[in-house]
Amino acid sequence: MQDLRDRLSRITDLSHAAAILEWDQETYMPEGAEESRARQVATLRSFAHELLTDDDTSRLLESATPESEVDQDLVRITRKDVEKATKVPADLIARMAVASGRSKGAWQKARATNNFSKFAPHLSTIVDLTIEHAEALGYSESPYDALLDQYEEGMTTAQVARVFSDLREQLVPLVKTIAAAPPITDTAVHGNFPHEAQWAFGIEVAKQLGYNFHHGRQDVSAHPFSTAFSITDVRITTRVDPQFFNPGFFGTLHEAGHAMYEQGIDMALEGTPLADGTSLGIHESQSRLWENLIGRSRPFWQHYFPRAQKAFPEALGRVDMETFYRSANAVAPSLIRVEADEVTYNLHIMLRFELEQDLISGKITVEDLPREWNDRMEDWLGIRPSSDSEGVLQDIHWSLGAIGYFPTYAIGNLMSAQLFAAAKRSIPDLDVKTANGDFSDLLLWLRTNVHQYGRRKSSGQILQDATGSPLSADSWMEYVNSKFGDLYGF
Amino acid sequence: MQDLRDRLSRITDLSHAAAILEWDQETYMPEGAEESRARQVATLRSFAHELLTDDDTSRLLESATPESEVDQDLVRITRKDVEKATKVPADLIARMAVASGRSKGAWQKARATNNFSKFAPHLSTIVDLTIEHAEALGYSESPYDALLDQYEEGMTTAQVARVFSDLREQLVPLVKTIAAAPPITDTAVHGNFPHEAQWAFGIEVAKQLGYNFHHGRQDVSAHPFSTAFSITDVRITTRVDPQFFNPGFFGTLHEAGHAMYEQGIDMALEGTPLADGTSLGIHESQSRLWENLIGRSRPFWQHYFPRAQKAFPEALGRVDMETFYRSANAVAPSLIRVEADEVTYNLHIMLRFELEQDLISGKITVEDLPREWNDRMEDWLGIRPSSDSEGVLQDIHWSLGAIGYFPTYAIGNLMSAQLFAAAKRSIPDLDVKTANGDFSDLLLWLRTNVHQYGRRKSSGQILQDATGSPLSADSWMEYVNSKFGDLYGF
Repeated sequence: MQDLRDRLSRITDLSHAAAILEWDQETYMPEGAEESRARQVATLRSFAHELLTDDDTSRLLESATPESEVDQDLVRITRKDVEKATKVPADLIARMAVASGRSKGAWQKARATNNFSKFAPHLSTIVDLTIEHAEALGYSESPYDALLDQYEEGMTTAQVARVFSDLREQLVPLVKTIAAAPPITDTAVHGNFPHEAQWAFGIEVAKQLGYNFHHGRQDVSAHPFSTAFSITDVRITTRVDPQFFNPGFFGTLHEAGHAMYEQGIDMALEGTPLADGTSLGIHESQSRLWENLIGRSRPFWQHYFPRAQKAFPEALGRVDMETFYRSANAVAPSLIRVEADEVTYNLHIMLRFELEQDLISGKITVEDLPREWNDRMEDWLGIRPSSDSEGVLQDIHWSLGAIGYFPTYAIGNLMSAQLFAAAKRSIPDLDVKTANGDFSDLLLWLRTNVHQYGRRKSSGQILQDATGSPLSADSWMEYVNSKFGDLYGF
Repeated sequence: MQDLRDRLSRITDLSHAAAILEWDQETYMPEGAEESRARQVATLRSFAHELLTDDDTSRLLESATPESEVDQDLVRITRKDVEKATKVPADLIARMAVASGRSKGAWQKARATNNFSKFAPHLSTIVDLTIEHAEALGYSESPYDALLDQYEEGMTTAQVARVFSDLREQLVPLVKTIAAAPPITDTAVHGNFPHEAQWAFGIEVAKQLGYNFHHGRQDVSAHPFSTAFSITDVRITTRVDPQFFNPGFFGTLHEAGHAMYEQGIDMALEGTPLADGTSLGIHESQSRLWENLIGRSRPFWQHYFPRAQKAFPEALGRVDMETFYRSANAVAPSLIRVEADEVTYNLHIMLRFELEQDLISGKITVEDLPREWNDRMEDWLGIRPSSDSEGVLQDIHWSLGAIGYFPTYAIGNLMSAQLFAAAKRSIPDLDVKTANGDFSDLLLWLRTNVHQYGRRKSSGQILQDATGSPLSADSWMEYVNSKFGDLYGF
């Protein structure tokens, strides 16, 4: 058992070293180092893969005698990891790496020049390889199950489709109701928000939420992310727009939410492959909970608005709290996912989920995508992209071969409300505490019910144990109906 | 051959990944991550060691057919690396790691409390292990040869002792002459030198010397260093004292000198173990050349002083160039090596070189060290430490087991003058160019004669080919006699 633990610890060290190199690449690496860095990361990742899949690991897994429940989980989950890692032939992985390298470049050019036809042949290759990948991974019902399972282990396409269909039925009319109501403008979140003041304010709030900077830090990067190198080193990045409050501040809360999850994993799991988020959905539930259910709530701004006014006197000096709160929550159907508000965001995801399934099942072809995209956008959100750059070309994911990833964003949103509702049941005065800037009970509840387990519990099991139910759209619909009913007066 | 190249490239990637983790540790890593980081670095280093010393590498070295001169050097130098790496038993390496871990902590406490006796037993262990290490490495004349060879391959104790003895004979009287001359005060380099202005000025000058920031960057760390992750990613760190010009500025030039060396290695060696400095002495010659022979020269300040006055108006607004130049070159025997001036610095090193040899040969014991240290300081520099913290306890090196390292500092100083004299012979108007802020010919000369080779040439060979002579104290003595004769009027 100790030999197995040592081996897994070394594999984990290699993966974390690769993550450190990637963090550096996005934050501080000199521009001219791209090529060498790509090689170094690939070397570390391939070592980790070779070690995980070699015969010694299998032998250790066979012969190890677990001495604790953690050991049992370590053996159980590592077996699954090995199985997954060995299912996909090395030549397919290599072909996918080559294809996604080319495809990413083609996507960048296609988006810049609004020319989908330049990207289409690359995307076709990606789709073909993804189907081959799904076949290699195996599935019981549909190839898409295998893809989804990579990011949200244990959830099936059918289950997600049921929940999403339920969600869409209620959400599309809600969006229409809001669109028909007197609009809320977001002027208060635009204006002079100096970089330094945003940076300091974001860190101050993140610390008060419970993100521990003794074991973390924040840096600037073009695309915000959070990354963990150990339970004791979990970092976030943010970008700041000095004329717009939302991306920097809510981005910081979002990434801090991810980071608090990984900081909250039981230290008994440190250095093992169990010390990681259990699924992308659960991860996203943590970021969205802090970003939206806390950070965009009225009690939160009751506490923080006076502080924000001091930090941004020019932009907020003559704005009142309620106006600011409404601005931060304005809903307006828009074309770009990453700029979407809390209400319409899930529709952007469901659109991609449907198109992905249709592409994988062969119901539509890559050539059909732009029209299908625009038609469904119009149908669900009432707006139609005037160019593919604002439509089907907007996201990088498919160009990288990440098909099956998008649904985890909406799953995370639903989970965030489901977990938050359960937390509220056990902390009845949560809103009062939030209005006092006291987040300790909520963080403790999340640590106890979600964070500590790392990968020891699946996302389904966490949800069931913490909330008493499997994934459902109910809590989230209740939450948006109540919050936006209040805001938009319906 | 291609298999060998691939294997060595992967080993190099692992070592560079470890260096990236170490860089992060000194610059940005959250404090609370120390333990996990130590484990991760150890994992990467041990993988690199295992791969280098395993049978597959030896088999590839046996069977590879070199296809070029670079291939030949790759095989030749890797054979030596493997031989060295396999000579030292793993258990000795482990015992040294444990001992130096403990010893470092004991040294920190001993220095803080000025209590040598707390460090002495640890240092005795380190000395014993170092002797064991030297025996394992093997040597022809003295165990110290084996230690020196780790840092300055190919140089023998006898050779260095001859050169140092020659140096000391001339240097001790010179220091006495200077001490007897009317003193030069260093008041102009003390004053208000704001952090930001120092940072910007240092980077501006480093760029003009030829340090390429497209493939490099500068960050803050407690102890300045330079580090390379590839020929295309060579970084430096600096610390800044806002009341004292020298540490930040000359530190930046020093580290930029190291960095330009590694940036100048032939790109044909990229990703191979040959893309590294060939010895610590040659490395130090490059840092000292830019720091002292250029950066502390009159022509340099003829060009940069007006710029410095603009950058630091409060400190330098009413100072003239000559006063500043003299301040930056003030000589005064002092107790602390890292604060020593250009002239006395080598005596600090020779003191350590002698004590190290006496410890290893058993001529003195650890208990004798404080007295021996103080006596020799008094003899050579005319000053005596009033405490061991200012004496034998000042440096970290011995606590880490780095015995044989110190002499490379003085070797580097001598080499810097020897190389600079050769460069001057081939660029007769070098001083005029320096006074015009044009360093391109000098950098090209260094690239051509030193940098490009990486580890393909030994330090002795570089010196011989570039200057026509083996290591000698002559150029450096001529340089200090001329420069400080002028400054101190003898």
